[in-house]
Amino acid sequence: MSENSQNQVESFNAYRAKMNDKILGDKNKIINRIFNLDTNAFAAGALDVKTKELLGLVASTVLRCDDCVKYHLESCFNEGVTKEEVMETLSIGTLVGGTIVIPHLRRAYEFWEALEENAVK
Amino acid sequence: MSENSQNQVESFNAYRAKMNDKILGDKNKIINRIFNLDTNAFAAGALDVKTKELLGLVASTVLRCDDCVKYHLESCFNEGVTKEEVMETLSIGTLVGGTIVIPHLRRAYEFWEALEENAVK
Amino acid sequence: MSENSQNQVESFNAYRAKMNDKILGDKNKIINRIFNLDTNAFAAGALDVKTKELLGLVASTVLRCDDCVKYHLESCFNEGVTKEEVMETLSIGTLVGGTIVIPHLRRAYEFWEALEENAVK
Amino acid sequence: MSENSQNQVESFNAYRAKMNDKILGDKNKIINRIFNLDTNAFAAGALDVKTKELLGLVASTVLRCDDCVKYHLESCFNEGVTKEEVMETLSIGTLVGGTIVIPHLRRAYEFWEALEENAVK
Amino acid sequence: MSENSQNQVESFNAYRAKMNDKILGDKNKIINRIFNLDTNAFAAGALDVKTKELLGLVASTVLRCDDCVKYHLESCFNEGVTKEEVMETLSIGTLVGGTIVIPHLRRAYEFWEALEENAVK
Amino acid sequence: MSENSQNQVESFNAYRAKMNDKILGDKNKIINRIFNLDTNAFAAGALDVKTKELLGLVASTVLRCDDCVKYHLESCFNEGVTKEEVMETLSIGTLVGGTIVIPHLRRAYEFWEALEENAVK
Repeated sequence: MSENSQNQVESFNAYRAKMNDKILGDKNKIINRIFNLDTNAFAAGALDVKTKELLGLVASTVLRCDDCVKYHLESCFNEGVTKEEVMETLSIGTLVGGTIVIPHLRRAYEFWEALEENAVK
Repeated sequence: MSENSQNQVESFNAYRAKMNDKILGDKNKIINRIFNLDTNAFAAGALDVKTKELLGLVASTVLRCDDCVKYHLESCFNEGVTKEEVMETLSIGTLVGGTIVIPHLRRAYEFWEALEENAVK
Repeated sequence: MSENSQNQVESFNAYRAKMNDKILGDKNKIINRIFNLDTNAFAAGALDVKTKELLGLVASTVLRCDDCVKYHLESCFNEGVTKEEVMETLSIGTLVGGTIVIPHLRRAYEFWEALEENAVK
Repeated sequence: MSENSQNQVESFNAYRAKMNDKILGDKNKIINRIFNLDTNAFAAGALDVKTKELLGLVASTVLRCDDCVKYHLESCFNEGVTKEEVMETLSIGTLVGGTIVIPHLRRAYEFWEALEENAVK
Repeated sequence: MSENSQNQVESFNAYRAKMNDKILGDKNKIINRIFNLDTNAFAAGALDVKTKELLGLVASTVLRCDDCVKYHLESCFNEGVTKEEVMETLSIGTLVGGTIVIPHLRRAYEFWEALEENAVK
Repeated sequence: MSENSQNQVESFNAYRAKMNDKILGDKNKIINRIFNLDTNAFAAGALDVKTKELLGLVASTVLRCDDCVKYHLESCFNEGVTKEEVMETLSIGTLVGGTIVIPHLRRAYEFWEALEENAVK
């Protein structure tokens, strides 16, 4: 495994966890409830977790939010989504959202590779 | 079935079909290929048609495009997606996209009702 | 009072209320909680209601959501916000959001006039 | 010439002019200066008026603002831009902005037809 | 005071000042006037400076512009806005703009901490 | 020529080329066709290449995509577009897209300087 891939995933998760802790610790009621809703919305319901994570991924892609894309890519990876399924989801995001999405596609692809490399260690 | 519901679905489809014909007939190569890609991207692949239509629905929702939402709602309806699955998809769209999505949620809900009423005739 | 102004405000509120009732009655937990949060977020806290409504107005303006703008204009009107304060808020929205906001500014201005005319009856 | 085409262009222009007059008459300094800048930015400079109008058109297209698209279509029409040049501009807008632009493309195409029909009278 | 916090605020301001100087020195009339309008729009009027800075902050938040958020956070800080008021403003931004705003919320929170730490030196 | 300018342009191009190769090599049909359309849409037609690159630049600017802006700046530079023409294009983008575009304007200006410095070597 390349040091670099590990670092990309780990540093993303570390910063995310550190800042989430601080924000939640600030106890703004509205923000804390939105964080809570986020957990609930992606839990299994009429749709299974995998489908919901793909929905989160495509929504993040068309809204061009790199960090949100990374977060859902990692959840997809942990749910056993295949690379081909991810690519089809990203292809819909790129078609619907336009070529303006392509720079985010590049970073998404790189992050998925990092997730795969980390898993092989 | 209310006259109104039938009209909403029919007039949406009629305008869409009429203008698509005109645009495609204009033979701009780039535009025609994008229309063609749109058909291909939602065909069955690693992901099935139903999942892809839900992806199209949530992407349209967060980008707040009423006509795109209606189009994917109708495709979802024809694919046998249940109302509960649609609502979970729209709930993810509203959470990810924010309360700014709510006016579009109202129109989406109304259009889904029109689709259901039309089907009962 | 012109019939027209009354109609614009009333028909906006009537459709909004009717569809909100249907959506809330559908009991999707995520959506209902988001509606609930919306009520809470604009209640008095460290910032007063008036300031929060102005925040909601400018956010809706730069995101170019006509219905959201109308909703917050009506709340501002009920809170006693003056036209000059509304115009300064809209001017910041137009500067930050760009000239692409101008068509929404026209509709906002028209709706505010309708609110004023309705109040004089 | 169809009555309908005339109406579409005329009613768009009439509403735009009426509301602009009201807004400018309100004398908010920031808003009035932004309107003024808008006139200046599209005047001939290093780039000619035609090119600038095409820039305004594609910017309005990717930001999905129907009224802004109509405004720049009419200016393009008055500058003698050909339909083929408009379609190439809209094709770039649709590619860069994604299929989410297509509903706006339909309305743009219809408005251009109305401009052409009005000119033949 | 951590070296890091000082650097974050200082390097942001230094780059901003350096590039603004270059851009303004280029003497494009439209751009220079927009910069000028920006100064005017946030000056005291019917609304006070503090309220206007909060409006700028929430507009920047829902449009997900990190640099704009930082700029208004610093102005808010200098105007004596409390952390609780900032958090309520950011909570409205996150609710209206959706969870897609959260990564920007993390960076906003971190920047506010840097502003506070710098002030204690 | 400053080492820094060379690095900015080169590292942008190197990352872009590396990731494009990987993505195209993945052979997702939709994505590969979108990349292909991108090449075609900016080829000479009713509008010349220079005008099309300016259209791509302003579209990227109002959509606030730094990498897309850089890409079109480099193409403009290679087409012999003058700095004054670029600035007028960016001024339209900043006016239409609002002051939220300004941080992207700073980075665009810096990248154009890097392109100019690299050319002098």
